[in-house]
Parts: sequence; C-alpha cells; structure tokens
Amino acid sequence: MRMGLLGAGRIGRIHGQNLAASRDAALVSVADAVPEAAMRLAAETGAAVASLDAILADRTLDAVLICTPTDTHAELIEAAVASGKAVFCEKPVDLDAGRIRRCLDAVARAGKPLMMGFNRRFDPSFAGLERRLRAGEAGAVELVSVISRDPAPPPVDYVRRSGGLFRDMMIHDFDMVRFLLAEEPVEVFALGAALVDPAIGAAGDVDTAAVLLRTGSGRIAQISNSRRASYGYDQRVEVHGSKGMLRAGNIHQTTVEIATAAGFRADPVQNFFLERYASAYRAELNAFIAAVKGEAPPSPSGEDGLKAQILADAATESARSGRPVTVDLAAL
Amino acid sequence: MRMGLLGAGRIGRIHGQNLAASRDAALVSVADAVPEAAMRLAAETGAAVASLDAILADRTLDAVLICTPTDTHAELIEAAVASGKAVFCEKPVDLDAGRIRRCLDAVARAGKPLMMGFNRRFDPSFAGLERRLRAGEAGAVELVSVISRDPAPPPVDYVRRSGGLFRDMMIHDFDMVRFLLAEEPVEVFALGAALVDPAIGAAGDVDTAAVLLRTGSGRIAQISNSRRASYGYDQRVEVHGSKGMLRAGNIHQTTVEIATAAGFRADPVQNFFLERYASAYRAELNAFIAAVKGEAPPSPSGEDGLKAQILADAATESARSGRPVTVDLAAL
Amino acid sequence: MRMGLLGAGRIGRIHGQNLAASRDAALVSVADAVPEAAMRLAAETGAAVASLDAILADRTLDAVLICTPTDTHAELIEAAVASGKAVFCEKPVDLDAGRIRRCLDAVARAGKPLMMGFNRRFDPSFAGLERRLRAGEAGAVELVSVISRDPAPPPVDYVRRSGGLFRDMMIHDFDMVRFLLAEEPVEVFALGAALVDPAIGAAGDVDTAAVLLRTGSGRIAQISNSRRASYGYDQRVEVHGSKGMLRAGNIHQTTVEIATAAGFRADPVQNFFLERYASAYRAELNAFIAAVKGEAPPSPSGEDGLKAQILADAATESARSGRPVTVDLAAL
Amino acid sequence: MRMGLLGAGRIGRIHGQNLAASRDAALVSVADAVPEAAMRLAAETGAAVASLDAILADRTLDAVLICTPTDTHAELIEAAVASGKAVFCEKPVDLDAGRIRRCLDAVARAGKPLMMGFNRRFDPSFAGLERRLRAGEAGAVELVSVISRDPAPPPVDYVRRSGGLFRDMMIHDFDMVRFLLAEEPVEVFALGAALVDPAIGAAGDVDTAAVLLRTGSGRIAQISNSRRASYGYDQRVEVHGSKGMLRAGNIHQTTVEIATAAGFRADPVQNFFLERYASAYRAELNAFIAAVKGEAPPSPSGEDGLKAQILADAATESARSGRPVTVDLAAL
Repeated sequence: MRMGLLGAGRIGRIHGQNLAASRDAALVSVADAVPEAAMRLAAETGAAVASLDAILADRTLDAVLICTPTDTHAELIEAAVASGKAVFCEKPVDLDAGRIRRCLDAVARAGKPLMMGFNRRFDPSFAGLERRLRAGEAGAVELVSVISRDPAPPPVDYVRRSGGLFRDMMIHDFDMVRFLLAEEPVEVFALGAALVDPAIGAAGDVDTAAVLLRTGSGRIAQISNSRRASYGYDQRVEVHGSKGMLRAGNIHQTTVEIATAAGFRADPVQNFFLERYASAYRAELNAFIAAVKGEAPPSPSGEDGLKAQILADAATESARSGRPVTVDLAAL
Repeated sequence: MRMGLLGAGRIGRIHGQNLAASRDAALVSVADAVPEAAMRLAAETGAAVASLDAILADRTLDAVLICTPTDTHAELIEAAVASGKAVFCEKPVDLDAGRIRRCLDAVARAGKPLMMGFNRRFDPSFAGLERRLRAGEAGAVELVSVISRDPAPPPVDYVRRSGGLFRDMMIHDFDMVRFLLAEEPVEVFALGAALVDPAIGAAGDVDTAAVLLRTGSGRIAQISNSRRASYGYDQRVEVHGSKGMLRAGNIHQTTVEIATAAGFRADPVQNFFLERYASAYRAELNAFIAAVKGEAPPSPSGEDGLKAQILADAATESARSGRPVTVDLAAL
Repeated sequence: MRMGLLGAGRIGRIHGQNLAASRDAALVSVADAVPEAAMRLAAETGAAVASLDAILADRTLDAVLICTPTDTHAELIEAAVASGKAVFCEKPVDLDAGRIRRCLDAVARAGKPLMMGFNRRFDPSFAGLERRLRAGEAGAVELVSVISRDPAPPPVDYVRRSGGLFRDMMIHDFDMVRFLLAEEPVEVFALGAALVDPAIGAAGDVDTAAVLLRTGSGRIAQISNSRRASYGYDQRVEVHGSKGMLRAGNIHQTTVEIATAAGFRADPVQNFFLERYASAYRAELNAFIAAVKGEAPPSPSGEDGLKAQILADAATESARSGRPVTVDLAAL
Repeated sequence: MRMGLLGAGRIGRIHGQNLAASRDAALVSVADAVPEAAMRLAAETGAAVASLDAILADRTLDAVLICTPTDTHAELIEAAVASGKAVFCEKPVDLDAGRIRRCLDAVARAGKPLMMGFNRRFDPSFAGLERRLRAGEAGAVELVSVISRDPAPPPVDYVRRSGGLFRDMMIHDFDMVRFLLAEEPVEVFALGAALVDPAIGAAGDVDTAAVLLRTGSGRIAQISNSRRASYGYDQRVEVHGSKGMLRAGNIHQTTVEIATAAGFRADPVQNFFLERYASAYRAELNAFIAAVKGEAPPSPSGEDGLKAQILADAATESARSGRPVTVDLAAL
C-alpha cells in the first residue's frame, strides 16, 4: 500500500515515521509548504519530496494522510477522494459544520474511505476500556466523566485562529463521550472562563471549561477542560454503569517513588501529547491501513467528525448564551 | 458541659455514643418517640430517658443535639434556643427555605449558637484538603469536582418524603462545594434521571444527577450523584487551582491486594456512611463543644444550612425546567 | 465475664479501655506499680483499683490481662492459672526459652487458657490476607516476605533491657511468618548492624536487620527490620504462592494527595502503633473473650509464643556467629 | 559509527533494530549461525548479511555487538578487541570466573572498550532511582531489596545449560544490588528450592530463591527470585536510606481499572521482558555509542560482569553448602 503525506509538521512527522516503520504500507511522498520540513522527513524515511498537487495527482498512491492546517482540510479531502484515494485527515474537517457536510457529501459520491484523526480512541487504555464496556463489564452506561487538561496554554495567536477551546480542545472529549456513551447526546450545557491567562479572555476565548451533556434516555456526560495542569498532561475517563465503574487515565513519567517525612511522592504524569499518545498514533495508522484494505469501515468516520463538531458548536453557543442547546445528531 | 439528645435513631445513637465517650461533655438525657430506642441508648451511655419537652425545659442543660425527623427540626431549634440552649441540628433545618429563614431569625434573636450537621467537612481527609487549599498549596481555586455515590438506593417510601435527591443527598455536596470554592455560586444547572430504579422515577424523583455551578468570577464546580455504587460508598473531592490539584477520597475495606493472571484486585471501598465518616462524627461533636464553649463560632452555621438548601432548591428547579437558575447567596 | 488488668501502662490502657467498651466482658479491677496509672484508668473505665495480689486472689474474676514488664510475665501467668483464671499476656512469656517451657507446663497442668498478645494477627488486613491464603486464593505458599520498620529508635536504656532487636521487635515478624507459612521453619540466617544509631551498636544491639528462614520442604521467608522509617510505621506482608501474590500493608494518614510540577504527593503512613493497630487490639480482645468462653482455643497460644521466641533466639545467635542456625519447632 | 552484529536471535534483533533506528550509529552487517535469522534482520534494517569471521575481520567497523550463545562470548570478545573494535556483549562473559578474568586481561591489553549488557541499569525508573539515590534524596543507603520474578519457567533443557538460577537469572539482581549499594558485598547467603517445577529440581537447579548480602560496613541487600509470576513480569527495587525510601517497579498493561462488588481490579503488569525493558535497551545502546565515542567509560564494564558472576558463584555455592560464602570484590 502506497501513501502520500500532506503536511510534515509535528503531527505529520509522527504519522510519516510510523508509516516508514510499518510493514503493511509505505510512505512514498511528502509535501509541505515549508520545503525544509518535507526534506527533513523525506530524508529520515526514504520518501520522496513532492508538491501537494503532484501527490494528489499521483494515481499510484492508495491513500493520503492530511496533516496540513485546518482551513485546507475540506478542499484537500475533496481533491484526494476525487482522484481515487482513501483519506486519513487530522481533526477537524472544517470549523464550519455546513462546510463539513458538503465535504462529506463529496466523499460519499466518490465512494472512498475517509477516517478522522481522533487519536484518543486508539490509546490502549481508552480502547481497552471501551471494549470492556461494550462487553458489558460495567453494565448499562449511566454516567461518563472525561477530564482533559493541557500542560500549558497555547500562544494567544494560536488561540485566535483555533475556533475556541470547545472546537479546538474539547472536540476530542466530545468524540470520547460519543465513543463511550453508546447513545447520542441531545443537549449541551457549557460553562467557560479565562482563569489561566487573561490574554485568552481578551482574545474572546476561555481556558477553563466544563460541560454537561444529556442523552434522550437521560444518560449524563461530564467534561472538564483546562489549558493548564502543572503536574503533566491530564487525560482521564471514568464510566459508571449499572454493574460498576470502568476508568482509565494517566501514566507517571517513571515508577520511582520517594517516601520521607514529607510523605510519598511519585513523578508528574507524562507531559507531552506525543509521548502520552505514541502507541495510540501507531494503532490509529494501523486502523487506517485496515480501512484502506477494506477490512473494516473507517472509524472514526467523517460523520463522527461532523457530530463532534456539532457538539463543539453547541457548547460554544451555550457558553455564550448561558442556555442549554439542543442538538439532533441522530438525524444526520 | 451537659447535653440532651432529641432522637435516638441511627444518627442520634452515633452522637450519643460519641458524647458518652467525650471528656469535655456529658450526655445527660435522651428522648425518642420510640421509648425502646431512648431506653437502649440510655442504658448504653448512662444517660436518663426523658420526654422531649422535659429536655427542652431542663435549664441545667447547656445544649441539645437534634436528630429527629426533618419536619420537626425548625420548631425544636426555636424551642431550644428560646430556653437558652446551644443547638446542634442534623441537616436540614427544613425543606422550605422560607421556614429556614424564620428559624434563623429566631436563633439570631435568642443569641444562641446553632451548628448544622454537615459531617463531611469534618472528615480528616476533606478537612485536611480544605486547610491545605486555604494555605495556598494548590493556588487560586479554578475548578472543584465532587463525586458522591450511595451504595444502594433508599426505599421509595423514603424517597417520597425526602424532598428529592438534590435536597436529600446532593445537599451535602453543595455544602462541600461552598466549603472549597471560597466564593459563592451564582448559577446552577442540573440534570437528573431515574436510571437505577424506575420506581424512583415513578415517585417523581431522580437517582442519577449531575450539576454545574458557576461563581461570579467564573470558577466552576461539578457535582455528580448516584443512588448506586456496587463497589462501596464513593465519596471523592478534587480541586484544581493555579498551582496544581488537591484531591481526597475513598478508603478500601482492607489493604489486602491479590495479584493473579486476572490482574491486581483490591477490596471495595468502605460501604457504610457510619464507618466512612466515624472519625468525622467525632470531630464534628468536638467542634460543637468548642462552639458551645465560645471558643469558635458554630461552623457550619445555620446560614450555611440555608445556603446549601437554596442551591438544592435551585438544582431541583433547574432539573425540572431544563434551564440554569441564578441564586444570590451573597445577599443573605 | 469479669476481668482484672495487671499493668496500666501504654498497652494496658488500650486493653482496659477496649474492655470497658465491650458488651461481653467487664473490667473489674486494675493494678499498677504506679498508683496514679491504675487510678487514672480506673476513673476512666469505672473499674476498681486493687493490688496485684488482690486481683490474683479474686476468685470472682474469670480472667486477667497481663501488661506488666516482661520479667514478671512468667510468674504472674503461673499465679493466675493456679487461681483458676484464664490469661491473656503481652508477648513474651519470658526472654528465656527454658523459663517459657516451665511456665507453659504449669499452664497445661492448670488446664486454663493462655493467649499471647501478638496483635498483628488481628489486624483486619493481615487477618483477611491469612484467611484468603488458607482458602487457597494464592495457591500453595512458596515465599513470605515481611517488612517491619519502626518510626524511630527507642532509648538506648530500653534497648539494653530489651533482649535485642530480634527478641524485642522481630519476634512479631517471626510470629507473622509462622502465621502465614503454614509450615514450621527449620533454619534461620540473620544479618544485623547498627546503622541508625551508633549508641545502639555500643549497647551490643543492632537497629537494622534481615533474616532468611527455610522450611523443611524448601519454602522461604524473608524479614527485614529497621528501627527507623521517616515516612511512618512501615508494616507490610507479601506472600507468593503457586497461583499468585497476596499482600497487605500500610494506611496513609489521610487520603489527601497533591499534584504539582514536583509530582504527586500523598501523606506519610500512620506513624504510631496504637493508631495503626487500634482495630487489631479490639479484635484481639474479642478473640480472648471467645477463648475464655471456650468457643475457640486460645490463639496465638503459649506454644506460639515459645516458637517465636526460639526463632528470635536462633536469629540472635546467627547474627552473632555468622552461621545459619537450625531449629526444631515441630518437636515442641 | 559503523557496527556489526553477531547473533540475530531474540535479543540480537532488539539491538539490531534499535541500531537501525539510531541517528548516531549504523548497523552495517549481521551474522548468525542460522542464515534465515541473519537474512530476516538484514532485510528489515538494510544491513548486509556476513559471516562471523568476516565481521570480525572488517576493519571499517568501529564496534560489534555480541548476542551469540554464552559459551562463545569470551572468544568473540577477544577476537573483536584484537581487531580493534569496541565491544558490547550480552551477559555473561562466561560462566567461569577464571575464563572471564583471562578475557578481561585480553581486553585491557587491547585497550578497547567493553560494555556488558545489564539492561536493567538503563530502565528509566531504575536509572532515575539510582541518580536520585546518588544525589542523596534517601540519605546513606542502609538496605536494598530487589524482587525479580519471571512470568514462567524456561524449558528444562535451557535450565540444564544455564549455569543455574543464580548465574542465569539472579545475576541481573546481583548487578542491580551493586549498582545501588555503593559498597561492595563481602558475604553472600543463599536459599533455593524447586517449588515451581519438580523437573527443574531433577535437573539440579532451583526455581525459587532468596539471598542475603552484607557489605563491610554492615549494609544489607535482599534478593528474591522466582521462575513464576502469574500476574506478569515482576521487577521491583526498594532502597532504604537514612532519610527515607526510594522504590521503583512495575507497569500495568493498561491503566484500565474496573470497580464492582468484587473490588477494584487493575491489569496484570507487563508480561514480557522485551516490552518491559524496551526503553532500557534503547538507552543501553546509546550508552554504548557514547562509550565508543569516548564520551564516557563503558559502564557496566567487563569488571562489573566479573563481579556479578563472582556473586552468582558464591550464591550457588552457598545454596549448595548451606553456609554463607565470603567474597572479595574490592580486590579485583
């Protein structure tokens, strides 16, 4: 299986290196607006540097991975499926749900698989939790709680272009909630504030937020986010069901513990998302390869991306209006 | 210091026995509508059995502990302070906030201390967490999360008279949120459903609920409740501040752990509130004794009881209307 | 059931107060060489102060608890059983194994129950571990590991009269090893050094020690002891069997945990043996009451005390000679 | 830096793949007695297949990695250093200490670096623990405890050729003890039995063992080993010093935990040494590369290998004779 990579930035490099190490697929060509970035990754992996257009036009490629800036995703997806390629695209398809719908229509017409990059579904612990939940270990789901805290806030410049915390950061948690709840949310209520960095507030965004979601049958999901966590990148999930609780979470940097008169002290948790989710990115790529082979439908799909975006939009609106917002994901 | 006890049921017995073991105060007399209950506790503690009226009239008593059914609390508090006694009363003063206000007015006029029985503030772990939070160990508070799950739902009969989950169960968590947030909530949004027992739903109540609260400066509190937890009585608090996180929680029944091919298995957590909060009840009584001595103001006070009740009322209304409800606790 | 207490020091007070709170037995009289100690405990419990001889002579008593200094134990046990009383005695019967044997002979002739105070067998976690081990949860025992570390070394004066670390401190661990191994050790090898306090070395004792024991079928036990543990009173047991591992251990002072850039810090473990083993002392007394009632044989018995002493003697000799020492406990 | 690899079995593949992924060194050629093994690894890494003699004779290579069977190590080390190469060799140099000494003499004459493959020193947790110990966080070392349990016993055929548990398995723990104690052991006492598999006993070896070591100043080390651990590959270290305890240990397979009426159950720990020590092998290779560059002396050195072997020999003798055995590592 031959693949091209569009975008050789931080996340593109991860996928490119995982592809180079794969036995089931080959990284053939790499494009990036910054030639040095493409050249560096090409040198490391044995791939060729190519232009974005050349990769899209290359009929020998089975698939492309889209790791370019968000505002290029929809157009690139459309071009790639039009030229007969399967597509893996980093989240989101677009910051505008209408634009996403049009893109997904084009994908449907082309009949090519589109898989979205919600990497956390492939974390061995979260994936294992979901499998055990589906197998009934905790019984019928009643309440899902997701905690997600970044180690430190991004630059305000990034925040301004990000679509806001709910679309940029919490979208992962909306996808996780959908992954675990097994029933679509119908209502979203959101609170947010700029408690970490006043400049984020001045830019019109929040850095601390919490959301409640409700499904039609009354199941509840809680999400909390912060752009700061002094003790590492905090990523936890807890699910309560009729039989018990399943939870999964963080990994400490080492297993070392010191005990003195001050107490027992363990390390901070892993601090960087590329470290925390290294095995998730490998599993994600394997899932995409399987989807390209036709062994399984692409999952999370473009529709999953759209639904998470609709929840993020609803949360953004709720936080602004102070009112709960209803959504109808089942009708999509 | 001489004390009388009104109500020798489950919680009255705890206070009575702790009083009997105290070096700083004596249990002089016990009243209960069920004579056998009063006689049994009197026999165990060396106290006398007396009528409720006789205890209220006894001018040699410094204080009374009110552990009778909720609908008698306000009247008994008023009678006790009118006869010159300090009062410890189990929560709540009343299910009606207006009635609570009138009672607190009477207490204010009498000039006698009234302390409310929010036992969780005296749990060594929660109390220690609050002290360390106040000392600045976690920096300025940004988000408080409280989890409270009972081992098993109460009888539906109890549910019908309880005022509903938000007033009967979550009121403890509203008090805990206020204890930790250090700023009054101004808004409450609540979700609830009967997922555990349909009979609870048929009785007009919920058994699974989650609430979001917001303070004026944007701080956030999350609460989740369930009437069921297969793995024990689940009582956890987590506070995020500008410097880090403070959390406290459950105690396993023993420290025994078994490791086999099935994994590592620890015991369920302590299952019964009298066991989980045994040391909290002792510390609570000591705090009341100190308040009667005038060494410290009674805390949590009647006003704390009123404020928790107003939050519970707001949550009840929010869950019914589907809208966030604003409150003005600072104006009380 | 009527009981007398000989010795109202630190450990005598514990037993006296537990007895006073018991529904199944009464503390009738208390003796202590320091009259104030006896008077204080008598006042607290409602018992009478009496002389040691009067208590021994009191035919209305069913049992005595012996909590006096070690060098009085054997004689008091003999006098008590001779006057028809059941006896609970703090460890050890004597520092000399020959003297213990003569005392146990006297007990056997009198036909009265003698139970020894190895409190750790009654710790809910260690007792639960042992029950689960006997029930086969970990399979056939292969290796037992016991860690026991005191918070701080005793005064050198105490050390001089103590019989040495192996007889004074590790004797509890020898009993624990026997409790868990289910087969008698046949060989003991010990290492010891004065690493904590040179004055302990100057007094001829050690403060840091480790022992290996072997049973006839090749099962192994490890013990390590230290007179110092900055992080609390460290009491841990780990048992490996053919099916897996069972372990039990320490309880932190509270459940509070703080997470910052420095990592995750929990409290020290409970620091004082009276706190750590509070529930063990209550369960121990209940077991003695059951033995006096004839509901169960006294356990740990005087023979258990003798066997632990023989292992302590063997370890003392091994540490001095540098050679393993064989013992024959099965022949007792 | 150009390297050759002798031996493409399980551990040789690990080093070969790590070398292929390294930016600082290249895997040039691979030899194995089984041609398919060499061809497979060569194909995966882009290296050439070569004969063992050709690799030893290749003057363009800076170093070789020796991953062949134990009985070839000494001769291959001598040949490699004689041809001017730095050598990394899997433990041990030889099962005979005299043969090791002669080999180390040859290495010394050649003046080429020799580094031994005690991978556990490079585990991030154990390495971090050692750095913090050296930095004084736990004060002066008093007691080191090492637990090492394999998931399942090896085939009896392997056991027969292994030199016995103390030389084959516990040698890693002897090296770890030396790594942490900061003072050479002077005495070894060992117990061992075949409790897991009688066939291991019939082959003259043990599968369950425990050792005590003593240094000149009285510091103590404990080691326990078993060929079986149902709950995963158990690798733990605990060090007690004058200021406190440092410990490090196992990693669960995932962070998932389930809580039900049966308790709280976490996954088994990582079960396979290649998974448990994956990052250790990468760090080990980097340390060898640094040693070849002359940036640091090779560590663990050939002398470290000899000393661990002498301790393993002493333990083997002690287990057979039932006597402690003295060693003089400082004199080497």
